[in-house]
Amino acid sequence: MATPIVSIIMGSDSDLPVMRAAAEILQDLKIPFEVTVVSAHRTPHRMVQFAEEAHQRGIQVIIAGAGGAAHLPGMVASLSPLPVIGVPIKSSNSIDGWDSILSILQMPNGIPVATVALNAAKNAGLLAVRILGASNKDILERIKTYQNSLTEQVEEKIKIVEDLY
Amino acid sequence: MATPIVSIIMGSDSDLPVMRAAAEILQDLKIPFEVTVVSAHRTPHRMVQFAEEAHQRGIQVIIAGAGGAAHLPGMVASLSPLPVIGVPIKSSNSIDGWDSILSILQMPNGIPVATVALNAAKNAGLLAVRILGASNKDILERIKTYQNSLTEQVEEKIKIVEDLY
Amino acid sequence: MATPIVSIIMGSDSDLPVMRAAAEILQDLKIPFEVTVVSAHRTPHRMVQFAEEAHQRGIQVIIAGAGGAAHLPGMVASLSPLPVIGVPIKSSNSIDGWDSILSILQMPNGIPVATVALNAAKNAGLLAVRILGASNKDILERIKTYQNSLTEQVEEKIKIVEDLY
Amino acid sequence: MATPIVSIIMGSDSDLPVMRAAAEILQDLKIPFEVTVVSAHRTPHRMVQFAEEAHQRGIQVIIAGAGGAAHLPGMVASLSPLPVIGVPIKSSNSIDGWDSILSILQMPNGIPVATVALNAAKNAGLLAVRILGASNKDILERIKTYQNSLTEQVEEKIKIVEDLY
Amino acid sequence: MATPIVSIIMGSDSDLPVMRAAAEILQDLKIPFEVTVVSAHRTPHRMVQFAEEAHQRGIQVIIAGAGGAAHLPGMVASLSPLPVIGVPIKSSNSIDGWDSILSILQMPNGIPVATVALNAAKNAGLLAVRILGASNKDILERIKTYQNSLTEQVEEKIKIVEDLY
Amino acid sequence: MATPIVSIIMGSDSDLPVMRAAAEILQDLKIPFEVTVVSAHRTPHRMVQFAEEAHQRGIQVIIAGAGGAAHLPGMVASLSPLPVIGVPIKSSNSIDGWDSILSILQMPNGIPVATVALNAAKNAGLLAVRILGASNKDILERIKTYQNSLTEQVEEKIKIVEDLY
Amino acid sequence: MATPIVSIIMGSDSDLPVMRAAAEILQDLKIPFEVTVVSAHRTPHRMVQFAEEAHQRGIQVIIAGAGGAAHLPGMVASLSPLPVIGVPIKSSNSIDGWDSILSILQMPNGIPVATVALNAAKNAGLLAVRILGASNKDILERIKTYQNSLTEQVEEKIKIVEDLY
Amino acid sequence: MATPIVSIIMGSDSDLPVMRAAAEILQDLKIPFEVTVVSAHRTPHRMVQFAEEAHQRGIQVIIAGAGGAAHLPGMVASLSPLPVIGVPIKSSNSIDGWDSILSILQMPNGIPVATVALNAAKNAGLLAVRILGASNKDILERIKTYQNSLTEQVEEKIKIVEDLY
Repeated sequence: MATPIVSIIMGSDSDLPVMRAAAEILQDLKIPFEVTVVSAHRTPHRMVQFAEEAHQRGIQVIIAGAGGAAHLPGMVASLSPLPVIGVPIKSSNSIDGWDSILSILQMPNGIPVATVALNAAKNAGLLAVRILGASNKDILERIKTYQNSLTEQVEEKIKIVEDLY
Repeated sequence: MATPIVSIIMGSDSDLPVMRAAAEILQDLKIPFEVTVVSAHRTPHRMVQFAEEAHQRGIQVIIAGAGGAAHLPGMVASLSPLPVIGVPIKSSNSIDGWDSILSILQMPNGIPVATVALNAAKNAGLLAVRILGASNKDILERIKTYQNSLTEQVEEKIKIVEDLY
Repeated sequence: MATPIVSIIMGSDSDLPVMRAAAEILQDLKIPFEVTVVSAHRTPHRMVQFAEEAHQRGIQVIIAGAGGAAHLPGMVASLSPLPVIGVPIKSSNSIDGWDSILSILQMPNGIPVATVALNAAKNAGLLAVRILGASNKDILERIKTYQNSLTEQVEEKIKIVEDLY
Repeated sequence: MATPIVSIIMGSDSDLPVMRAAAEILQDLKIPFEVTVVSAHRTPHRMVQFAEEAHQRGIQVIIAGAGGAAHLPGMVASLSPLPVIGVPIKSSNSIDGWDSILSILQMPNGIPVATVALNAAKNAGLLAVRILGASNKDILERIKTYQNSLTEQVEEKIKIVEDLY
Repeated sequence: MATPIVSIIMGSDSDLPVMRAAAEILQDLKIPFEVTVVSAHRTPHRMVQFAEEAHQRGIQVIIAGAGGAAHLPGMVASLSPLPVIGVPIKSSNSIDGWDSILSILQMPNGIPVATVALNAAKNAGLLAVRILGASNKDILERIKTYQNSLTEQVEEKIKIVEDLY
Repeated sequence: MATPIVSIIMGSDSDLPVMRAAAEILQDLKIPFEVTVVSAHRTPHRMVQFAEEAHQRGIQVIIAGAGGAAHLPGMVASLSPLPVIGVPIKSSNSIDGWDSILSILQMPNGIPVATVALNAAKNAGLLAVRILGASNKDILERIKTYQNSLTEQVEEKIKIVEDLY
Repeated sequence: MATPIVSIIMGSDSDLPVMRAAAEILQDLKIPFEVTVVSAHRTPHRMVQFAEEAHQRGIQVIIAGAGGAAHLPGMVASLSPLPVIGVPIKSSNSIDGWDSILSILQMPNGIPVATVALNAAKNAGLLAVRILGASNKDILERIKTYQNSLTEQVEEKIKIVEDLY
Repeated sequence: MATPIVSIIMGSDSDLPVMRAAAEILQDLKIPFEVTVVSAHRTPHRMVQFAEEAHQRGIQVIIAGAGGAAHLPGMVASLSPLPVIGVPIKSSNSIDGWDSILSILQMPNGIPVATVALNAAKNAGLLAVRILGASNKDILERIKTYQNSLTEQVEEKIKIVEDLY
């Protein structure tokens, strides 16, 4: 694979069933990426190093998934100048996901995190592609093609539903 | 001003006291931008036109602020291939801001919105700059400089607090 | 079937298990209706066209079901002069349905949506019939008959429960 | 005034500062209406009589506002065959309005209430007009004219905001 | 059975799996009771009659269980001078029980409902016994005996747990 | 004053502005009562003694108000065989009153607390009177008279509101 | 086993599946402990005695788990001078755990409880060890070793995840 | 002042109005302490250094206050072996404090934070003293004396309230 320009990180391999959707959509849209485990709480030094070096390695967007008191996206955003997309994960002892959402979303002034919906790793991947497309016409076209495919999928569903009545 | 590359939109001029912080930080970081009113509910046709044409006019990032049942960021994201940053606004009849947050954040698979904290227009501006910096070394440097200034501001506060005890 | 006067729309065929209860009650009360898929986010142009033309086709009430950041009912209400009934749907990644409820209910001044309970497509259908009955004595009678049948059903349950003790 | 076709009721005169917006919009759109106090908890017999007789007096739509454990809209909907619009009111000891919203919105199957946003009496009035307009071309035109006026108001605000930047 | 002095009512026989715990504890503590179905929304006239006559039939305490927009306990309390105990029920389409709790608990000044925990029909039964015991030494003794039995049950559990470690 | 039969307790004198409404309604309805401070957390031994002796002193109903993590009503109910009415108080650092409500309402099986609405000390007083009236015809009559006065107060308000339109 | 210095208490043996994780981590880190059942509501006198004597028996930290209206941790903290760690438990009739969390966390000024995450008995055990380690170098070292083991576990997971892509 | 054994840190000097209560109670109970500003997001390197060195400088307990997406307490707990007490602060753009509470409380297994009530810096100070008292008889006595003073303060309030009635 080409040098990755998007980095997908998560606090634990138990987040993989949710986060793999980000990898899949990047694969579909032909964006080179990497996937690894970085834990804010269990590997804080690895996290600091990862966040400070990512842009030097050619990474342009970071996607970080985390559950519960989810500090990974915010801490990475504090240490990196890159856009960081946070994916709140509804983990087993989460309180219906509210803890993950609020601890990723409610960042203080100065350090933004781009938060997507609960468990919405696919949308995190798509947001990363849109960010890349902002300055790259070819990638922008892939987004448009993808949007058209969404429309077409609905057209099939229209037939299924209308035929029932 | 140079051709704008960031567009700040809001549903009403009553959102301006919150949204102006996005404009200010873009001004500080020397990113050309535009500000206007686009209402999903009151001017749906204007919204469709705005969203479909923005990338053709050179806009690279859209910042959309809205309160209550906040449909503007999501609808614009559905119509534009650009990255859309949503700012939930705690308006007068909002239920503590929960309505704005959830109706911006919880977008379905396929159409991502980059949501920031409640009323966090400043962070929306900074996120736009990070998005631009992902592919632009000069802008990336401005983000780093800005991050350093945050650190320096804390150092002054350390002295104030430590001197009290 | 006669020309439909109620239109039941939903964002995806995955909403059908909830939304079919609206169709069933309309069928029971002999109101001609149509059912189709209209997605605010995946088919925005279809949505605009649907909403602007519905009243011209003889539709008198629109029932719109949607989950998550549910923009369909509000956007249709913005584009149509007809009464729009919104059904919040508790979809798979919804946060207990709060997102759907708040993004349908909390519409800004000027564009009302008649919101019913979470997943309450049956009540949406009944509300549509009441709306039609407001100006139609025959339909009003059907509502009264329906209300009487509810009372009678309880009377059977009274016997079942009282016999246990 | 002509015989009223919309009835605006509320549990107490303390709800009037919120509920008067419903009366105002009906007045603007030239719909004859009445306003009175009906309390589910303090005047249950009056409520039963009101609800059972309203449609016989020519009322076509009922708007009921209530706060806290708000039982008025649901009880009236149980006793009347008319469409009932419920306005949740954020009263003084309400828990941020959640109690009013949930006790109006979450009606059981069989008895629908058309719920609008917290304190949104204006939208309740507009919803009543849309309901009347469903079977009345003249009233439908008034809704369209009103919608156009919303669009025009935004156009003025666009100028104000764009001139600032 | 002796003339009932406690009346257990519920909106539907589907509430019986929760509400039967009230009957069981009354049986255990030898309080004569009745159980029936009274629906605020489906049988409003039956509800009015029940509530107005209960104290004339010798009923001293009413236990009312209801789910969703739960109006039964509050409406009965408005029509009867007796103490009314409300049991919020987490029914199938309830929003985690919040709707039932708030629409029973948040009664306006003047009409109290004694609310117990979600699904806590057993505690509703025990509260009824305490209310009867307030003026009846014999029943008060039964409460004390019951409280002692709770203490004894814990003592057995202490042994089980301590033996594990 | 006659020997008190209702005891109003609160955790701190700062709760008095809320709790005095319970005393006032008892005074109005001529029920002898006492008011004092009992803190579960600051005076646990006083609380144990109070709760165990109250019924021996002739107290028939206990009203306990508390804010935040409100343990007073539940602990008193655990130590006394009397009916205990809990008043959740929205104190200064409370989270909108949710903490007080849930820590009073959600008592485990075996130990009921009769919870009233947030800050609803007046309803707590009225509930105490209803409990006394369950076995006392004279007090029951006072409740009926009070309920009639509520109806009459609404009738005055009807005139005020109807005259406005 | 040596004289226990940590005491793990819970309201019922039904809390054991959650609370045993506290015992396990104390065992792993070689801290002598005891486990027993103490119920605030079912055995209030046992609770008073336990709390007042614990520090006299050599106990240095108390871990108390409870669900619903969880009064045990706060009441023990009121009666003991020791640090009390509260574990909110999501029990069967709990409202998603919110009741347990708020009734443990929101203690009034003067009586602190060290609250950990919902069901987080393992973290309660680890917090107890940290508290002991604050004044004991040997135990502090065990914490450091434990933290290092967390880091090492992540390193294994990194390989698993990176090998997938 | 003697070498500090408790360290009070906060993300910004704007947290001082809340956090100073921790300092005051430590002063009252004669525990040497330090106060400074450490920001997880604005000074991440300072935070790492602070957390890794605190126990080497003789600090035995860390009190960390933070608002919004509050990452400071959890990150410090990840880097230090000491007990960390987290104080959720209801800052200006916080969502009623829920964000601070959940992002401090809901830490993952392995890294505990001792969370106190919203804005409860005084209780954080008292918890620190209890932690120190766990292994120090003299400090334990101070806690007991403090608890007695709480009881005495209530006794004065009893007189004030009882004299009113």
